[in-house]
Amino acid sequence: MPRHFDDELKLLKERLLDMGSRAERALHRALEALLRHDGAQLPEVFEIERDVNDLEVGIEQDVLSLIARRQPVAADLRFCIMAIKIAGEVERVCDQAVNIAQSTRRLVAEPPIKRASITPFMGEKAMKMLREALDAFVRGDVALARRVLGEDDEVDSLRDDVFRTMITYMMEDPQTISRAMSLILIARNLERVADHATNIAEEVIFMVEAREVRSEQEKGARITREERKP
Amino acid sequence: MPRHFDDELKLLKERLLDMGSRAERALHRALEALLRHDGAQLPEVFEIERDVNDLEVGIEQDVLSLIARRQPVAADLRFCIMAIKIAGEVERVCDQAVNIAQSTRRLVAEPPIKRASITPFMGEKAMKMLREALDAFVRGDVALARRVLGEDDEVDSLRDDVFRTMITYMMEDPQTISRAMSLILIARNLERVADHATNIAEEVIFMVEAREVRSEQEKGARITREERKP
Repeated sequence: MPRHFDDELKLLKERLLDMGSRAERALHRALEALLRHDGAQLPEVFEIERDVNDLEVGIEQDVLSLIARRQPVAADLRFCIMAIKIAGEVERVCDQAVNIAQSTRRLVAEPPIKRASITPFMGEKAMKMLREALDAFVRGDVALARRVLGEDDEVDSLRDDVFRTMITYMMEDPQTISRAMSLILIARNLERVADHATNIAEEVIFMVEAREVRSEQEKGARITREERKP
Repeated sequence: MPRHFDDELKLLKERLLDMGSRAERALHRALEALLRHDGAQLPEVFEIERDVNDLEVGIEQDVLSLIARRQPVAADLRFCIMAIKIAGEVERVCDQAVNIAQSTRRLVAEPPIKRASITPFMGEKAMKMLREALDAFVRGDVALARRVLGEDDEVDSLRDDVFRTMITYMMEDPQTISRAMSLILIARNLERVADHATNIAEEVIFMVEAREVRSEQEKGARITREERKP
């Protein structure tokens, strides 16, 4: 028996949130392994990534079916397309968790490097951004989405700290070069997680504001990507 | 006067190709600057990126309008969604060109590092993948798309060469650490360009094979992301 359109959209939101919390768990496991210098939990990251890939394919198929059956227009159609794009962002976050897990696997096989914990700290920030961006999406909360955009600078500045610190270590002791490099690459992965959260937040702002513009009858107003950046 | 649906799809393909060739030009400019150790052409990279961002927004709006007006189903609907996803991939390639241009700006302000040319060579491979992936999309050429997937390993192996070479330099002469790091990050950017080309190629394979499966009336056949990897 076919559900109501709104019920289908609600289900879609729930599935995206489920996907998001799995991606978050994958990241959390990878960063915990790094912090504890213990790779026991790393295989779970790879398992979660497979599930998240399947979820993305499922969401895309559902959205295509939804569009074909219900033929939504305007805001509903935009929401459907956005769901596909957000699922893509979340899947990429999970890819970053896998990259981090691979680097961590190499790192835990060697002696720990001091101040490595700056990277997991950066990870906490990036995960917070992801959580907030998905919340903003579910609630259509533009203020929260804008806050996410602001937090991107914090993550970038933490990444610069990691870079500077690690380059100092490499210069002081060439024995640390390959480990410090791994930590720099993990910082880059986390920077990308923050970028994906930013992309989701931008989509939310774009969706909600386009809706408001339309409802204010400001016909002909074209919101470009330039304008939607804060 | 409204055009035929096929004409609209053809126009959409042309705009995606135009976007792709601009992204390629941005990459080419950035890598040329790196190879020649001369930053004169770098501002063009940033200009192209702005144009490509606008093109992405325009393509997305056109596709939304196309779906709302024509209400395509099955293969045509999938093609429309794919156009949005591919535009997103191309825009990200351009972001990588900007990242490379930023690193190159720092590099050309310092003395050149020997064997830096391995990175632009890797760039040529990544650009070839992008060009082939977009060709495969326009022609619906699965064989070409599969070739792109195979080439990803070559790019990964070149990235490993860059990493190894640069880590050796850093160990031999700590004065090169910051420049060698920049080249490693550029290699990572190029690896991501190859990943975007791979994503486009996977979409092409998925689209064409789903269509073939449907036309063979193999009802109930569900192609998962797992299966579409070679």
